[in-house]
Amino acid sequence: MSDELLVEVTRNGTVESRHFGAAVVCDFEGRVVESWGNIERLVFPRSALKPMLAIHLIESGASDHYSLSDAELSLACSSHQGELIHQELVESWLSRLGLTEDHLACGPVLPEDTERAHQLLASGQQGCRIHHNCSGKHTGFLTTALHLNLPLDNYHLLEHPLQQLSMDILSDLAGVDLKQYPMGIDGCGLPAPTMPLIQLGRAMARFAKPVGLSATRAQAIYRLHQAITNEPLYIAGHGTVVTELNDVTKGAVLAKTGAEGILTAALPARGLGIALKIADGSARARSVALLAILDRLDVLSDEDKHKLESHISPTIVNSRGLIVGEIRPAASWL
Amino acid sequence: MSDELLVEVTRNGTVESRHFGAAVVCDFEGRVVESWGNIERLVFPRSALKPMLAIHLIESGASDHYSLSDAELSLACSSHQGELIHQELVESWLSRLGLTEDHLACGPVLPEDTERAHQLLASGQQGCRIHHNCSGKHTGFLTTALHLNLPLDNYHLLEHPLQQLSMDILSDLAGVDLKQYPMGIDGCGLPAPTMPLIQLGRAMARFAKPVGLSATRAQAIYRLHQAITNEPLYIAGHGTVVTELNDVTKGAVLAKTGAEGILTAALPARGLGIALKIADGSARARSVALLAILDRLDVLSDEDKHKLESHISPTIVNSRGLIVGEIRPAASWL
Repeated sequence: MSDELLVEVTRNGTVESRHFGAAVVCDFEGRVVESWGNIERLVFPRSALKPMLAIHLIESGASDHYSLSDAELSLACSSHQGELIHQELVESWLSRLGLTEDHLACGPVLPEDTERAHQLLASGQQGCRIHHNCSGKHTGFLTTALHLNLPLDNYHLLEHPLQQLSMDILSDLAGVDLKQYPMGIDGCGLPAPTMPLIQLGRAMARFAKPVGLSATRAQAIYRLHQAITNEPLYIAGHGTVVTELNDVTKGAVLAKTGAEGILTAALPARGLGIALKIADGSARARSVALLAILDRLDVLSDEDKHKLESHISPTIVNSRGLIVGEIRPAASWL
Repeated sequence: MSDELLVEVTRNGTVESRHFGAAVVCDFEGRVVESWGNIERLVFPRSALKPMLAIHLIESGASDHYSLSDAELSLACSSHQGELIHQELVESWLSRLGLTEDHLACGPVLPEDTERAHQLLASGQQGCRIHHNCSGKHTGFLTTALHLNLPLDNYHLLEHPLQQLSMDILSDLAGVDLKQYPMGIDGCGLPAPTMPLIQLGRAMARFAKPVGLSATRAQAIYRLHQAITNEPLYIAGHGTVVTELNDVTKGAVLAKTGAEGILTAALPARGLGIALKIADGSARARSVALLAILDRLDVLSDEDKHKLESHISPTIVNSRGLIVGEIRPAASWL
């Protein structure tokens, strides 16, 4: 099966660019509710795994031991934009652990938030490891490593007990042993597993409604729902589709991005998981596709849609400030 | 006909993302030498038109009147990166015309060259109109407008005589009246015409070997070949595939990018034109696809390929400086 045309970019009403991909909606028992394109193809879920990768913090007792706040747990699940609020929270969390930026395995980068990046440059600074969108996840791993008395060195390598534990947790949620699939290395240095898109959808449905998992794991997942719902700014940042979806729907849609065109969502009340991959890795198309699916599932109220308008129907604005085009879901699949 | 899988992005050997598109090689008599994907589909060639749009400078006599240098003519054909060399040449050219940045219709932006953009921010500056990748083209239009005593105001609108002249020149090269196709507005405010990809390939072939055009037009095109070949840094910038292809092949391949995944090339000695569109608008895939086509056409020597290695097989490097993947042409179409 080939990829499906999901999103079109127009200029003055004429289609200029096309984004293909695949998407799946699964229920918590693993059934496919609806799908488009080839959902059996392997994908790298990348950062979409982060909410699931944060389970160790709670299961291990590290979260209770270090009294992690909702904001810190949300940050552990995040691809944050490197805004000042994110930077300051990673800094204070590391400090409470008696650690510094140098313990993070992710490399130094400028914040993804353009305004913050420009502020730093204008004040003669550069990006650092804390600005990496994964620094919350890394601080989470360091927290559990400290609590379990595991080595802090090389915590990012697949051989480290924490990464072995992570693969077990992910396999449990996906309902398939991930060791059978190819593995890569992520932008931040951590292992980057692959799985068929359908398994990512199933994992998100299980994360939405943790039926069939151990009681401890289910409780950990409910705790993460609560943290993300209470502190949506810390899982992404101002103006992002993830933060605004989580915020506007009051936790009814827990969305999470992954690099290279991945976007997922857990719908706790509906017991549904959604996973989609834009084949070309584009970020601009994935949110338009997800919002079209959410609308199809009748998840969004009219008020929600009004608030999310800039993500549902983004416009293309040229250097003169003129609206010259738009990004829209293709009519063919809806 | 659907789009063809042209380029794959891998992570540790597993395909992570896929870029679809269409490409065509035409000869100077308009015949299709080879093609992939749907070449009848309308595309916005965007900045790929700039070398053809610079013809007015020479035909009108403006180039001779203002003694434009090879570097200035190359800059008129450019999507430059906003490096200091580009900025200074636009500034001195405008100054020679008695004009300023305020006469440019393109809006203010930061340079595409990251190093230069960061330099500006670190010194408390912002991007300006001269940093827009189209500022050379705009300065070219102002030059001809002055020489022909046309209004400088609103030179960017379709109704202006210069834009009407431009549509005539483009229609002449494409061998089809562009007025029959939809039109949009470009990032810099100029009209953005559309045409089937095959016509863009034919136009590039005609630009490569201007047979069947008026002697004046043919001479203008040869003059532009010479200028671009002598000053390849001014048509794009350091490290770009366009500058390096033009430089390494000593003008045997005159390549030009357009926004949203467009890349074209004129091969003067072979009388061939190439046009390709990455359907999703991606910039990272287009150069890999073009270099694969050039290799297939036996245009590149082993030495050329060695020098162009970073464009032929780009690597994906993560934040820790580790090579974690690559961008490669899909095997299926070559």
